[in-house]
Amino acid sequence: MKMPSFRRRPPTDTDNELTDLGFGDKVARNPGTRLINNDGEFNVVRRGGGIWSPYQWLVEMPWWKFIGVTMSAYVLINAVFALIFLLLGTANLSNVPQDSAIGIRFLHAFFFSVQTFTTVGYGTMSPMSLWTNALAAIIALLGWAALALVTSLLYARFARPRGVIGFSDRALIAPYQHGGECLQFRIVNMRDNHLINLTARVVLTWLEDGNRRFAGLDLERDYVALFPLNWTIVHPITEDSPIAGWTKDDYCRRRSEILIMIEGYDETYAQSIHVNNSYIHDELVWHARFRPMYHEREMTTELHLDRLSAVERLAGRGEEE
Amino acid sequence: MKMPSFRRRPPTDTDNELTDLGFGDKVARNPGTRLINNDGEFNVVRRGGGIWSPYQWLVEMPWWKFIGVTMSAYVLINAVFALIFLLLGTANLSNVPQDSAIGIRFLHAFFFSVQTFTTVGYGTMSPMSLWTNALAAIIALLGWAALALVTSLLYARFARPRGVIGFSDRALIAPYQHGGECLQFRIVNMRDNHLINLTARVVLTWLEDGNRRFAGLDLERDYVALFPLNWTIVHPITEDSPIAGWTKDDYCRRRSEILIMIEGYDETYAQSIHVNNSYIHDELVWHARFRPMYHEREMTTELHLDRLSAVERLAGRGEEE
Amino acid sequence: MKMPSFRRRPPTDTDNELTDLGFGDKVARNPGTRLINNDGEFNVVRRGGGIWSPYQWLVEMPWWKFIGVTMSAYVLINAVFALIFLLLGTANLSNVPQDSAIGIRFLHAFFFSVQTFTTVGYGTMSPMSLWTNALAAIIALLGWAALALVTSLLYARFARPRGVIGFSDRALIAPYQHGGECLQFRIVNMRDNHLINLTARVVLTWLEDGNRRFAGLDLERDYVALFPLNWTIVHPITEDSPIAGWTKDDYCRRRSEILIMIEGYDETYAQSIHVNNSYIHDELVWHARFRPMYHEREMTTELHLDRLSAVERLAGRGEEE
Amino acid sequence: MKMPSFRRRPPTDTDNELTDLGFGDKVARNPGTRLINNDGEFNVVRRGGGIWSPYQWLVEMPWWKFIGVTMSAYVLINAVFALIFLLLGTANLSNVPQDSAIGIRFLHAFFFSVQTFTTVGYGTMSPMSLWTNALAAIIALLGWAALALVTSLLYARFARPRGVIGFSDRALIAPYQHGGECLQFRIVNMRDNHLINLTARVVLTWLEDGNRRFAGLDLERDYVALFPLNWTIVHPITEDSPIAGWTKDDYCRRRSEILIMIEGYDETYAQSIHVNNSYIHDELVWHARFRPMYHEREMTTELHLDRLSAVERLAGRGEEE
Repeated sequence: MKMPSFRRRPPTDTDNELTDLGFGDKVARNPGTRLINNDGEFNVVRRGGGIWSPYQWLVEMPWWKFIGVTMSAYVLINAVFALIFLLLGTANLSNVPQDSAIGIRFLHAFFFSVQTFTTVGYGTMSPMSLWTNALAAIIALLGWAALALVTSLLYARFARPRGVIGFSDRALIAPYQHGGECLQFRIVNMRDNHLINLTARVVLTWLEDGNRRFAGLDLERDYVALFPLNWTIVHPITEDSPIAGWTKDDYCRRRSEILIMIEGYDETYAQSIHVNNSYIHDELVWHARFRPMYHEREMTTELHLDRLSAVERLAGRGEEE
Repeated sequence: MKMPSFRRRPPTDTDNELTDLGFGDKVARNPGTRLINNDGEFNVVRRGGGIWSPYQWLVEMPWWKFIGVTMSAYVLINAVFALIFLLLGTANLSNVPQDSAIGIRFLHAFFFSVQTFTTVGYGTMSPMSLWTNALAAIIALLGWAALALVTSLLYARFARPRGVIGFSDRALIAPYQHGGECLQFRIVNMRDNHLINLTARVVLTWLEDGNRRFAGLDLERDYVALFPLNWTIVHPITEDSPIAGWTKDDYCRRRSEILIMIEGYDETYAQSIHVNNSYIHDELVWHARFRPMYHEREMTTELHLDRLSAVERLAGRGEEE
Repeated sequence: MKMPSFRRRPPTDTDNELTDLGFGDKVARNPGTRLINNDGEFNVVRRGGGIWSPYQWLVEMPWWKFIGVTMSAYVLINAVFALIFLLLGTANLSNVPQDSAIGIRFLHAFFFSVQTFTTVGYGTMSPMSLWTNALAAIIALLGWAALALVTSLLYARFARPRGVIGFSDRALIAPYQHGGECLQFRIVNMRDNHLINLTARVVLTWLEDGNRRFAGLDLERDYVALFPLNWTIVHPITEDSPIAGWTKDDYCRRRSEILIMIEGYDETYAQSIHVNNSYIHDELVWHARFRPMYHEREMTTELHLDRLSAVERLAGRGEEE
Repeated sequence: MKMPSFRRRPPTDTDNELTDLGFGDKVARNPGTRLINNDGEFNVVRRGGGIWSPYQWLVEMPWWKFIGVTMSAYVLINAVFALIFLLLGTANLSNVPQDSAIGIRFLHAFFFSVQTFTTVGYGTMSPMSLWTNALAAIIALLGWAALALVTSLLYARFARPRGVIGFSDRALIAPYQHGGECLQFRIVNMRDNHLINLTARVVLTWLEDGNRRFAGLDLERDYVALFPLNWTIVHPITEDSPIAGWTKDDYCRRRSEILIMIEGYDETYAQSIHVNNSYIHDELVWHARFRPMYHEREMTTELHLDRLSAVERLAGRGEEE
């Protein structure tokens, strides 16, 4: 056991901390469950409160929902203010026809509120009493704050890189040098930006005597400085490998899952990226290899992103999937 | 002693720098004082100047106060401009009734200022002389700058993760393997975002011969790569432990405090997080253990945040608290 | 092979990961091609989809293009809304001459849309029906969102340091101590800001038996804490060097390229910087050395940025370039 | 010499890279010059171009200057547009008295431009021809962009921590344990925010045979995890110290300078901080020690920032400064 410290020595191979990852040993024991979903999220449901952050909610929701929420809030806020103007009496707003139906007066008040909230302020309608003036002042301040809010949300939404790294649909059990085998999968940068200093870490988890176990899988290479092309991440199945001798059935029966963590630095967005993914037994393909994703073309190299999951079955061995 | 450098070797176990933390040996010697408050702030009062940052003040104040300050500034600024309009003569603003009481004219000037500051500009009132035009130009510029300011403050306020990590109310002296004991407490991510690469560091401080002493507490595990569930941080009380053989009374008499530092990376906010906390003698519970916070449920794992501090007294030993 | 981990030991000299960089061994085999262009971009063309980010596109385009896109979008959006107003009937906008030609009415509608989109809202023209009011409310909301968008884009554009590090046009084969030779090039901070903790890494790549090979070049010094002046990065050509004994012709025939990665921290922009560059055979100069870029002047040191590539041919040896 | 790599081993004590820092050996040789000024800037003048960043200029200038530049730009831009309106003919702006002097019409046009630029748009004056409408549309777009610009600049200005760390005015040659001596100075966090993981590095430079030499000074402690109080940074003058046996005259004659680099992480602003400073011979005090900056007070510790440089001369030894 070592002295804890923030600037500590790198862990040694036998440190269990490298392999447990923060999951306990009592998770995902039912058939068909997994620890990490294919979208990279943990397969965990949170109950009993916790802190709900409206900011995070607004930043992480999809665009169509964000636009919907913004539009609805816009209509709702102005409708509420229109009601208050009706209560204050629309006679205190210039150019609102006083002898008209309440629906008409509501609409006038609504559009006056909109014109104030957005600070357009045509002036065709304008507040004429103390209270309508005061309310208009509040609406303008609120519109102002809303603009500030939307600006900061848009920046936060844009400044978050999403869907950066693409993973091949399947991991392969492929031939390896000197007649051996390896476990491999492939990643690529889905966007035209610079990812650098990428690190990969692969951990196998399986069920043994009713408890989850974890073991790191050694990689042929776990770091690339630059990421201009695809990167095939390879675990050679040596006799020391935790999956040495496993059959297809073993992967399924042991509820095994291959957990993947990729870390790197996104130069375009100037921030670290961390991506998780996993493959379970039915996402493994036996006796296959990846087709090349890039080839030389005149003075440059062409990378084909749509070939990320292109797999070639090897003759005479790819019996079934 | 080693050569100082920015890229230095990790400190070794005997380096005193790992344990002192930056507190001197003359602090918190009075009964009942502590070094780190339960909100994670240092128990230090600052005097004699220093740099006061209005930005930091506005970013760190609670929301109700921020809204109050914003609203007050809004009213105050426009009231000041209204007074200046009164001095310039409201005859130079169109549509202000000149034969009315000063209070009425002040209100008109106030709302005109508001309409200019927020750039609503209905135009019902408008400046008609050189000086009122110039003043309106200044108000509009100021409103503009205020909008920019509020936008940047809102972004800064939102982009700061708060209250990220929840700590159990109490630390426990719990049974450990082979009949031993351990000191433990529990943390959980209170929000539904991704915290990764968490590191924990625990330092004991106590009073000896009138001076503060510090000693690191070895942890069973001081790092988790992912943080999907809770993390129970455990210091096994071996014979090498600084607290080996301590009685409840010792913790109190020696003014001991268990200082905790957690570091990690918040993927959602794309920034490092650093959280401090501490437990003092009356926040320790003897002969108890934590109840599980999570259980399997069908195809997923359920985590109950409200069970963070749920403790089970152990039969026959939990005499008193 | 080592255990993969995020907090891993630094790689040793023989790790192939230090030299391959993420390019495969089948790239840039045609004469005249290079891996990294002089602007620091990879010489790779991406095909087959991938994620296109409008944000990244707007942030990375040059300023003239950004201004052009913004202006065009401004005109286009308002023209579309003007057409919709024509369809709704401009009789529902006050002060639009109804008996005028459609072109005149389009222009009125266009400028009304502009006045609403930018929230100027003079009020000379104003919406008078339900549908024109509703459309104006939408335009104002959109203008609002556009302002938020442009603000966040401007911030993102400004907050990205560009063109930070200048490289000398040429790398030199220069005399080195004790009659030896070295490969060297020179970098300087082109802007008046603080770059710190700079690290340099230089990798040679060449073609051998039709495959790309990579080898790291040892540097006399690969780190500077501060960067107040220029930094000449030097690889001494010892007998262990991969380029020991290479002739000019060898560099060309072997399609060799000297790949450079500089990392550091930009204090002014508070973010990491990563710069790539490369020299190919015709960017090497034999038997030359750099002229000094700085000299002392009274109480200070003067640094001449325009002398970055100033080279002095050495007598009797600089036969040809 | 080691293999260069981005993830390299920490340098060893004999690595010259730890001490040279990036200054050459030909700088600051004239009497009275220094390498780092007291404001932390390098004593270097840059000539011959380089990239001038208006953004950096606007972000780094003092507040009074920033406000001055903003106000001037505001007046200037609108004055230019006023002139263009005069050229287009102010008859095309409603409510501008056409028979008035050109100065009056200029003022009207100026304030109309202001009302458009800030999007106040009272509407008292409004554009009535194609060209005035088009110009108004351009002004509104520009005002819009200017608001976006000022917003992003304000955020950038606020989000940069300044003047964070205070240094004592003088460094001391103070008594050390066992009758020895040490070189020491003191730093404190001048603001009420959290700085953590602070690292200090101290390098001595002096002139020898006309060349600058650099040597690291070993520190009693070069790291603190937290920074709640002051930190006295101490170099014990052992016999291995480069300054062992130096007299006051030596410091002056050898043009010595004690260069200091402090790195840390600012939790409030969520970014790394890097501060440089230096002491030259006449900023050293012999035979003195610092007075305490903090004392216990009831349940807390009181830190007095104004005592940062409070020094106590030691009896019988502090002959002269």
